[in-house]
Amino acid sequence: MIGGRAEKHREVGVTTEATGPLTVETLDDYYRRLCNWGRWGPGDERGALNHVTPDKTRRAAALVRRGAVFSLQLPLDAHGPQTGAFGRVNPVHQMVATGTDHAAGGQGYGLGWGYADDSLFLFLQCGTQWDALAHIFRDQQMYNGYPAAEVTSRGAGRNGIEHFATVATRGVLLDVPRALGRDHLDPGEAIGPALLDRVCAHEGVTVEQGDIVLVRTGDMARRRGLPGWDGYSAGPAPGLSLHSAPWLAARDATGVASDTWGIEVRPNELPGAFQPLHLVLLVSMGLLLGEIWYLDELAADCAADGVYEFLLVAPALVIPGAVGSPVNPQAIK
Amino acid sequence: MIGGRAEKHREVGVTTEATGPLTVETLDDYYRRLCNWGRWGPGDERGALNHVTPDKTRRAAALVRRGAVFSLQLPLDAHGPQTGAFGRVNPVHQMVATGTDHAAGGQGYGLGWGYADDSLFLFLQCGTQWDALAHIFRDQQMYNGYPAAEVTSRGAGRNGIEHFATVATRGVLLDVPRALGRDHLDPGEAIGPALLDRVCAHEGVTVEQGDIVLVRTGDMARRRGLPGWDGYSAGPAPGLSLHSAPWLAARDATGVASDTWGIEVRPNELPGAFQPLHLVLLVSMGLLLGEIWYLDELAADCAADGVYEFLLVAPALVIPGAVGSPVNPQAIK
Amino acid sequence: MIGGRAEKHREVGVTTEATGPLTVETLDDYYRRLCNWGRWGPGDERGALNHVTPDKTRRAAALVRRGAVFSLQLPLDAHGPQTGAFGRVNPVHQMVATGTDHAAGGQGYGLGWGYADDSLFLFLQCGTQWDALAHIFRDQQMYNGYPAAEVTSRGAGRNGIEHFATVATRGVLLDVPRALGRDHLDPGEAIGPALLDRVCAHEGVTVEQGDIVLVRTGDMARRRGLPGWDGYSAGPAPGLSLHSAPWLAARDATGVASDTWGIEVRPNELPGAFQPLHLVLLVSMGLLLGEIWYLDELAADCAADGVYEFLLVAPALVIPGAVGSPVNPQAIK
Amino acid sequence: MIGGRAEKHREVGVTTEATGPLTVETLDDYYRRLCNWGRWGPGDERGALNHVTPDKTRRAAALVRRGAVFSLQLPLDAHGPQTGAFGRVNPVHQMVATGTDHAAGGQGYGLGWGYADDSLFLFLQCGTQWDALAHIFRDQQMYNGYPAAEVTSRGAGRNGIEHFATVATRGVLLDVPRALGRDHLDPGEAIGPALLDRVCAHEGVTVEQGDIVLVRTGDMARRRGLPGWDGYSAGPAPGLSLHSAPWLAARDATGVASDTWGIEVRPNELPGAFQPLHLVLLVSMGLLLGEIWYLDELAADCAADGVYEFLLVAPALVIPGAVGSPVNPQAIK
Repeated sequence: MIGGRAEKHREVGVTTEATGPLTVETLDDYYRRLCNWGRWGPGDERGALNHVTPDKTRRAAALVRRGAVFSLQLPLDAHGPQTGAFGRVNPVHQMVATGTDHAAGGQGYGLGWGYADDSLFLFLQCGTQWDALAHIFRDQQMYNGYPAAEVTSRGAGRNGIEHFATVATRGVLLDVPRALGRDHLDPGEAIGPALLDRVCAHEGVTVEQGDIVLVRTGDMARRRGLPGWDGYSAGPAPGLSLHSAPWLAARDATGVASDTWGIEVRPNELPGAFQPLHLVLLVSMGLLLGEIWYLDELAADCAADGVYEFLLVAPALVIPGAVGSPVNPQAIK
Repeated sequence: MIGGRAEKHREVGVTTEATGPLTVETLDDYYRRLCNWGRWGPGDERGALNHVTPDKTRRAAALVRRGAVFSLQLPLDAHGPQTGAFGRVNPVHQMVATGTDHAAGGQGYGLGWGYADDSLFLFLQCGTQWDALAHIFRDQQMYNGYPAAEVTSRGAGRNGIEHFATVATRGVLLDVPRALGRDHLDPGEAIGPALLDRVCAHEGVTVEQGDIVLVRTGDMARRRGLPGWDGYSAGPAPGLSLHSAPWLAARDATGVASDTWGIEVRPNELPGAFQPLHLVLLVSMGLLLGEIWYLDELAADCAADGVYEFLLVAPALVIPGAVGSPVNPQAIK
Repeated sequence: MIGGRAEKHREVGVTTEATGPLTVETLDDYYRRLCNWGRWGPGDERGALNHVTPDKTRRAAALVRRGAVFSLQLPLDAHGPQTGAFGRVNPVHQMVATGTDHAAGGQGYGLGWGYADDSLFLFLQCGTQWDALAHIFRDQQMYNGYPAAEVTSRGAGRNGIEHFATVATRGVLLDVPRALGRDHLDPGEAIGPALLDRVCAHEGVTVEQGDIVLVRTGDMARRRGLPGWDGYSAGPAPGLSLHSAPWLAARDATGVASDTWGIEVRPNELPGAFQPLHLVLLVSMGLLLGEIWYLDELAADCAADGVYEFLLVAPALVIPGAVGSPVNPQAIK
Repeated sequence: MIGGRAEKHREVGVTTEATGPLTVETLDDYYRRLCNWGRWGPGDERGALNHVTPDKTRRAAALVRRGAVFSLQLPLDAHGPQTGAFGRVNPVHQMVATGTDHAAGGQGYGLGWGYADDSLFLFLQCGTQWDALAHIFRDQQMYNGYPAAEVTSRGAGRNGIEHFATVATRGVLLDVPRALGRDHLDPGEAIGPALLDRVCAHEGVTVEQGDIVLVRTGDMARRRGLPGWDGYSAGPAPGLSLHSAPWLAARDATGVASDTWGIEVRPNELPGAFQPLHLVLLVSMGLLLGEIWYLDELAADCAADGVYEFLLVAPALVIPGAVGSPVNPQAIK
């Protein structure tokens, strides 16, 4: 029974089932066993996005019943979570022409015509974003076995974000804290298969082939208002356990996105490792990974109407050779 | 009769119905008569996007029959059309970490882990984009009567692009050259009401309240391969006549996008004026204007199956205070 | 007597002579009385740089006795003092081509040839810098009476930094804490005429027409190693008193630079005011103001050899229409 | 005899002495024979700047006789020579706050206080610049034998531009076309040892240890006003012959700068090679190479007074790890 299980979780202080200490062998086992290299041909650069067939998209569109649309993008501005980790800063938005220029009479067009214009300098993964399949490497290789060295200062020769130019499929929100009767998970809390099953059961949804799974931890809601976002960027966080990999693989999910900085639990379960789950999900399996997604408004709606599935339209910007992209995902119910 | 009319157009070398010379009075008449200021309240900042109700979105989603998805974004890279007009340059994509760094052993993570990261510097209207309602002014005012001076170097205090955070409605492609049996329109050719009617009739579609109308001229397809894009940016172009304004107003369209740099015909019909149609459509009517859209692949599909309507999901990036945004519109049939 | 006065300063915990509370009248008096508008003609855009005649430069060059050269620029990198005030971030340096690309074999030139290349995105006043005379306004005017509205989004139509394209004159270091036997001044400590006189006397120097005065407070040395630079940027700081204005004017100094964020003491002496001294020195008098200068190495040398004057070569970058510029000042003794 | 030789040059239509076709052997001979690796120790990163001793600087300062100062920097703006080669674009200067904002009343400071602020995005070698010793590689090595792979996406771990933080030495202008009685050299014209000797003789100067040699070709003056600068950037150009390397080495010059895009003649003398002289001068010898220098105003002055030597103060910006830097060189006579 779900209620009893939740109490047990609370008793041991974590929301995941107990896992023994993780070893490199576990990582390597998942890395090899769940591998999708070659599954869609030797020249594939779309990875698990291949699960999204026209039929899948058609069925996802049929989920639209009310016509309610939710933007899942955090505002892309100077108030974002970046504090310098990996050299990333928050985006810099600048005006090139302004209404004050126009008002001062300096634009010089006839008929009262005036304009404003602007620019943006951004790290492509500074806010709500997709990782490209060229974002992460292991042992000098990337997804589908391409050499990492094909990603040079000129951009990604393979697996660039332009391969995610169309993304329209079924989205499923897994609101983990809500299923546990909590406001949010805490840094270090891992989300493993049993908890994923439990949330699915609580919401009455199943994850299917081609789905993009949105895992809400409540981490963004809790930290967004705090100074420096309380170490949200690159710091400890709740998130997916390494053991979520076979769970996602068994369902042939196309992608997973979360309201955290890096999807996976941190500190990572494998001592001394940095983001080992990325190696399995992105490098080996070719999944779409979305980070820093704003899920709170959608979550409130799902809690209200009990419907946790929807059409998710979330294409990357078509930036050839880029290894990430901002995205304004649209969840349409 | 449409066929006869078309031949007449070809005879006179233009595809539009003849119009008398335009005067400021015509502009001012449209500007005043078609005005939507106050229509959605004194504090409105969404303009004609208000036509897109949940019911409209629901019905648009129901247009998805095959599950085919088309990206309408031109690649956002150094091969874009910008050549310096208005200070705009093509986007600059730069790597912050590379696979060659990883291959050279310099990243220093364990478990064979490596990564790439990148940044982008872009003028927000350098490629496929939406204009915000704060993009254009007339006589020190912008849409809904807000002072232009609210758009300062800190961004747009009103009518910023963040108000287009969700855009999911019916799209209709009007493939003008195809309806005329031509490859493309030429610079200076204006598209007025009669021609719009003719293309609708040819395609068997009507434009309805809340629709976004995609006007294909063939201009991008013709010029994209040429040096400097043959003056595509800020140069002469085919496009909408000033007389398209009442046509769009009568139908309560939400927006219009085109494969040209600036939607409207250039040289403009009103001697000495620069983009007068923007004053009517954007400042007065509050329409969403999309420019530099890539419509060719979608157009080929529409010609093949004869279906020119679809679900169009095209949100701006949520950049608070921005006056434009890149967009990767998804047309889903 | 100077020595006695200093002890009195230490007793009351400040290093400046006591001043009564400042009023707007004092500011306005200085602003009007010290005004250089028109002094070098109605079209002048060089301000007090006009004091630097060829003869002045020639005599400054004659100060070079040992051939020792000191760079007074703080490294222009991500470790700088910016934390977001005025939207400024530290500079972002990015590589466009790398040695790892070359090593990976991806550059494709013959003869073993390879290269690296890079870019920089910077706020022009993020580090060691000069203010242009177009940087500060009062009552919609700037230096020499030009309208502030000539500084639009397209840059400064008047008083741009390009007018400081050549700067070679006598520099004088006033090492305030050293003259007081202290390590540094503290935030809120104001440097007024008596203290300036005392430091000059202690060092055996006089400030002359055309000089650039380098005022060392020790503020950078103290805060540079601390988290967030301990609020160095835009925070409380030691610095010049408003009463330093007539002192500098009496000597016809060309400029003043300091190791603080903003030259003048903060909190400012005039309650509720922000940087009132900038109004007098820059707007009214047309002085060159340099901020965030790295003076410690030079100061150590001056203390060692007792020579506090030198040739100072410190041109701005020639960025037409800019209102500030990074600078790598060279003090040559 | 030099005069006779010059006439012979004019007869055959080139200004250089005839050279046989260049081979890789010549390049390799110079590359090995003129090598300075280890000359200043195994950890040296300053290269030929080591020739500039305090005594050298002192004597250079003594060259200042009139106090005339010349800026040798081309304006750093959108009118620069970049047209996309190597991904480089002209710098983008943007305002962050403006006088029009202030005039519109939007800045909100008391006492009539207002300000302007700005930013710059630039490729560090887009205009008048210095190459760092980390800019060019050969066979996976850079100056002094460091591995090229130490230049990663994080910047140059060795040989960065910060090692040129102080540059104050004797400069010598070699005005080649003036010595030949011409306006400018043409693309493809090589400047070899005999021509260098001839110009020195014509001007009555000798190049000495620690000097920076400014080679004027007239190329900038001729092309600057033409559309796209007539292919100035990365195109054919007059410039130094590969045979200038032993000439510069024999004199222990510290650096060489020119008014061309790349110092060396192009098309290069060695068929199929790209910038082979850079391999010898920069990688092997460790010279400072300056490009796109504005020499015309200085040249006019030198022609007028017959003095071609001066104090040259030309430090790089202190950008740690950068492989190039803009510079505003000051020639002081």
